[in-house]
Amino acid sequence: MKIGILGGGQLARMLALAGHPLGLQCISLEPAAEACAAQVGSVIAGDFTDEDLLADFAAGIDVVTTEVEHVPLVALDYLQQHRRLAPGRRSIAVAQDRLLEKTLFHDLELPTAHFVPVDSLEDLVAAMQVVGLPAILKTRRMGYDGKGQVVLREASAAEAAWSAVAGAPCLLEAMVPFDREVSVIAVRSQEGECRFWPLTENLHHNGILSVSRALLEEPLQALAEQHCQRLLEALDYVGVLALELFQVGDKLLANEYAPRVHNSGHWTIEGAVTSQFENHLRAVAGLPLGATDARCAAAMVNFVGHVPAASAVLAVADAHLHVYGKQPRPGRKVGHATLCAAHPGLLEPGLKTLVHLAQGGREGDAIA
Amino acid sequence: MKIGILGGGQLARMLALAGHPLGLQCISLEPAAEACAAQVGSVIAGDFTDEDLLADFAAGIDVVTTEVEHVPLVALDYLQQHRRLAPGRRSIAVAQDRLLEKTLFHDLELPTAHFVPVDSLEDLVAAMQVVGLPAILKTRRMGYDGKGQVVLREASAAEAAWSAVAGAPCLLEAMVPFDREVSVIAVRSQEGECRFWPLTENLHHNGILSVSRALLEEPLQALAEQHCQRLLEALDYVGVLALELFQVGDKLLANEYAPRVHNSGHWTIEGAVTSQFENHLRAVAGLPLGATDARCAAAMVNFVGHVPAASAVLAVADAHLHVYGKQPRPGRKVGHATLCAAHPGLLEPGLKTLVHLAQGGREGDAIA
Repeated sequence: MKIGILGGGQLARMLALAGHPLGLQCISLEPAAEACAAQVGSVIAGDFTDEDLLADFAAGIDVVTTEVEHVPLVALDYLQQHRRLAPGRRSIAVAQDRLLEKTLFHDLELPTAHFVPVDSLEDLVAAMQVVGLPAILKTRRMGYDGKGQVVLREASAAEAAWSAVAGAPCLLEAMVPFDREVSVIAVRSQEGECRFWPLTENLHHNGILSVSRALLEEPLQALAEQHCQRLLEALDYVGVLALELFQVGDKLLANEYAPRVHNSGHWTIEGAVTSQFENHLRAVAGLPLGATDARCAAAMVNFVGHVPAASAVLAVADAHLHVYGKQPRPGRKVGHATLCAAHPGLLEPGLKTLVHLAQGGREGDAIA
Repeated sequence: MKIGILGGGQLARMLALAGHPLGLQCISLEPAAEACAAQVGSVIAGDFTDEDLLADFAAGIDVVTTEVEHVPLVALDYLQQHRRLAPGRRSIAVAQDRLLEKTLFHDLELPTAHFVPVDSLEDLVAAMQVVGLPAILKTRRMGYDGKGQVVLREASAAEAAWSAVAGAPCLLEAMVPFDREVSVIAVRSQEGECRFWPLTENLHHNGILSVSRALLEEPLQALAEQHCQRLLEALDYVGVLALELFQVGDKLLANEYAPRVHNSGHWTIEGAVTSQFENHLRAVAGLPLGATDARCAAAMVNFVGHVPAASAVLAVADAHLHVYGKQPRPGRKVGHATLCAAHPGLLEPGLKTLVHLAQGGREGDAIA
């Protein structure tokens, strides 16, 4: 079976690597000139809105999935006339628009931070009264890795914030004093079976995911699964989905979801019985889902801007290196390492070393 | 770093898949028209004895390794003038010749079955007196998967046996009434560090490996490691090596070794902290070795001649499918499945199903 993937970046690359042993061939469509998935599978270069290209793409595949949520809906409109989409158009369209997304959470009675739509400076000033300060002005579209967000701490900052988003349609959200950010990675089959990996705790650096830790025996696991299952069923979702949540005491506020495999699920390659990449392909291809149990304690460290020397990463016991074959650039995700151990407490020394290496430290340097 | 591999079959394919996350690119040289490694990496098609081709191959790589032991020594002679070989020429040359191999075992004081060189019918008749019956006449070269072997049960069968091997130089070996066949997969780094995976018990069907089981907490582990370490050091070996042993009571008789990753080590992809494929690449590339501990109980079922439906294999809990992308043919290894579980006893029901599927049974058929 041939799986068409919209996008040819590292997520498509790891999907392709998971597909080969299953006999599933991944073929990416990627507008950017450089597509790191091409090193491990097939990539068709070109624009998502080029209908001739979409026709060629559709002709060579059995089903369409995506590694990016910001794909033009016209591409999905065209492709769904010819091939099955998994996940479907609505699952992707809603994830592209924070207002549709938060409204869906609200309709499904998933708790969220207080939010108000903002389409003008007047709206923003009024919204600040409703939501309170501090708050975050977020563009409805094209936000990821902290992009398209302005923090408002004082009423006087409204004009500058509105100018920063350049008049884009927005939401104003209350800034939640959360205890931690967690995500639940889930997979749903074509028959509606849902499975959930252990919750992951996520730490960010400059708005980009830095470290994820799998939370084994987490009391909030069941609640997160309930929230996520409601979302999966409402969307009639097929494939892997990541729901990001803020933990506030014993509550979980839904922040956003990604209709795809997710950075906070990379630890599942070594840390879980079945990885998010394999289970996404299984769901999309109509194969039985694999178990999502943790195989061991696991954490992941992102390599942003540069990949440390392989010799330094692999000197850490039970560390597993994943480079993406991308040119390094500041702020660009170019690889990660998964760290495994028999118990969560045993992860800490290795994690400290990996974070140090990720931050540009060399092996043998004193670790702060 | 670019790793040149002599051969482009399933072992090269699984090496290439293990290499991508490490940033190691595998480039195979393969005489056969069909090379399943080409689906996941680079393959240069052509003969091992074509010097122009070898020159091109050498120019594009940093180090040479092999996935086959039966590679012409002239190719190694040429390549070692230009690139480092890992493992080295002698490790491969000795493995190509059962007499050199058994003589090395003898010199290293590794116990073996009683063996005598046979170069004529007269030699064979005399050897039967020394070795006793039953015995096995084995060609010195090109034997694998039970090929080039004739079992002798009566003195009168000597002439037919000698005719069956067509005058090829041979050994006569005593047929050992062994309790079971086990193999130890080991890896040795450029610095001489040796690591060993848990022993594997191997069951054959029609001379081809059928099922391997990792033996956790096996009392003979230490003895097997001692034998294997002596061999690795004598050969100044670099990379993964598999030593096949016959267990007779509390003794282990060395049968043969493979200077490469081995079918009986495929379970390490999911079942061990570091797979044989990744550790072979780490050793060859001069990177630190990964841990060889088992992550769980594990077994492997070979798919020979046909691959069962993916839906049936993946319906088995904690079963992991590996297809090789090869055209099915009788007697051809075309895939395998690894089965994992928390304890060895928990493997049995799933193993029964996988063996049934491997033998051509369909999902839901009664299992004998």
